[in-house]
Amino acid sequence: MKELKNLMGWRPDIKVVDCTLRDGGLVNDFFFTDEFVKQLYITNIKAGVDYMEMGYKASRELFDESKFGKWKFSDDEDIKAVVGDNDTEMKISVMADVGRCDYKNDIYKKNESPVDLIRVATYINTIPQAVDMIEDAADKGYETTVNIMAISQAQETDVAVALDMLGQTPVQCFYIVDSYGSIYPEQMTRIADLYLNAAEKYGKKVGIHAHNNQQLAFANTIEAVGCGVDYLDATYSGMGRGAGNCYIESLIGFLHNPKYNLYPVIKFVEKYINPMREQGVKWGYDMQYLFTGLLNRHPKVAIDYTKSGRKDLTELYNEVILLD
Amino acid sequence: MKELKNLMGWRPDIKVVDCTLRDGGLVNDFFFTDEFVKQLYITNIKAGVDYMEMGYKASRELFDESKFGKWKFSDDEDIKAVVGDNDTEMKISVMADVGRCDYKNDIYKKNESPVDLIRVATYINTIPQAVDMIEDAADKGYETTVNIMAISQAQETDVAVALDMLGQTPVQCFYIVDSYGSIYPEQMTRIADLYLNAAEKYGKKVGIHAHNNQQLAFANTIEAVGCGVDYLDATYSGMGRGAGNCYIESLIGFLHNPKYNLYPVIKFVEKYINPMREQGVKWGYDMQYLFTGLLNRHPKVAIDYTKSGRKDLTELYNEVILLD
Repeated sequence: MKELKNLMGWRPDIKVVDCTLRDGGLVNDFFFTDEFVKQLYITNIKAGVDYMEMGYKASRELFDESKFGKWKFSDDEDIKAVVGDNDTEMKISVMADVGRCDYKNDIYKKNESPVDLIRVATYINTIPQAVDMIEDAADKGYETTVNIMAISQAQETDVAVALDMLGQTPVQCFYIVDSYGSIYPEQMTRIADLYLNAAEKYGKKVGIHAHNNQQLAFANTIEAVGCGVDYLDATYSGMGRGAGNCYIESLIGFLHNPKYNLYPVIKFVEKYINPMREQGVKWGYDMQYLFTGLLNRHPKVAIDYTKSGRKDLTELYNEVILLD
Repeated sequence: MKELKNLMGWRPDIKVVDCTLRDGGLVNDFFFTDEFVKQLYITNIKAGVDYMEMGYKASRELFDESKFGKWKFSDDEDIKAVVGDNDTEMKISVMADVGRCDYKNDIYKKNESPVDLIRVATYINTIPQAVDMIEDAADKGYETTVNIMAISQAQETDVAVALDMLGQTPVQCFYIVDSYGSIYPEQMTRIADLYLNAAEKYGKKVGIHAHNNQQLAFANTIEAVGCGVDYLDATYSGMGRGAGNCYIESLIGFLHNPKYNLYPVIKFVEKYINPMREQGVKWGYDMQYLFTGLLNRHPKVAIDYTKSGRKDLTELYNEVILLD
């Protein structure tokens, strides 16, 4: 049983990472208004958020610039237009996907950039590329973290090997990523143990990025906190692909670190998130996401189902089962 | 750490209790169509549900019959019209609230009734009345369980005394009730220990009835399962007062007991629950419920906020804080 002090007290090592622009951008193709982004930045500072993720560092070779908002690419100049010199306690991050980021060219030296942290995202079969990206970013002067995605479909022994490989890089944090929202809190405890053991061996931290397919994103995140996981991803009202992520309002309500403030978060949800939802931007738990979470599948079919306005849940369930 | 076998295996003692008509009835004043109720009954049987709660056994002295559907009162004749002789594996329950039920007159002898289980609901300060209701129902031949409501605002020592008093009655199960949706899974583990220790002493079972104010109803329910809690309340798509309950589709997806079937549940959600929602019947998580859950308050202000169509979340938050 976890210790009561984990609930009553707080750990100074906890870091809250706001991924609204990045994971939320997958919902609206990164078409956030400048006002939204500026107010989000101000809100995050007031709320005590530790890192604000501005978006992806996606390759313009692979993605057509005309089809996405600027936070798909997160140019330093666009970030500077929002954060200026970012003379605050909050740090700035961007995400760089293995195979989808021209990192050698598009990521400049830290001393020329407003970005503090490069978050490398990889699958279990692309760890060597992830290692190269981490080393490239570290050489340029950045903090780095690594997300191993879709681990619910990977073998535990492969994950352990991956953590050993990554442990030997300068990366500061291994992220547990529940890409399909298929993990139960009890499993999360075991996965956290695996990551924390590797992290202790190599002097790293552990983070968590959860999805809400089974309405467990927040539950899994606080389960992980109880285990000793420090870097916590969340988004405003859970905005993120498909069923979305851990709600930052729930997380900040839960954490007792005196630096976090719920009030500005509520205000932002009222003024910017809820109106965006009313305009039709759609994410969050629904039964179609339960199917893919429960069956440990990529959420694509459920996202397509939602977009097309279908209502034939039983038919969708049959389709998801047939994906085997 | 809980045992992996709890996830991979199953416990034959688990009982799933569908409370859709009862807790869900608080959302639509119990105005369910006869077809809805009949199909729900058939679906529950197919899904392997162990108990179906038909509604409240409310006093006609206290409640104006013209303002509620029939499941506020759950007359035996109305139940019989749905279940006939109920020649199935599934049992039928009704809920009787302390102070709101004329149990001596309105609950007939078991051998004249289609009901199997009387679920007594009480607050911590009305345990003697609950004891009398339990004894009355047991004398009449019913199974009985007891819900101690709003324990998050009661003292642990008072709850322990209540369990000792109830342990000496014929009641078969003590229910943990998270009325305000304020309990975190880690706390649930400790509460479950308290209840399970008392249950073991008196030869009783333990149940859980969760609310979704912090999107933790399912998480708390499966946390309780891992602790050894056997009676699990849930409703279709979480239909229930305010933020609603544990989703029965999530729960049945999680449990591995071979008797449970998800498919009929999905079909019922598609054909009856989702259309009802589209017609404007409203329940489920929203930020206003997070406030009352987080601050351990009765959800009434959040329910009123929702009903009135208000959107001023920050103002509501101020109001909830001022409830102290």
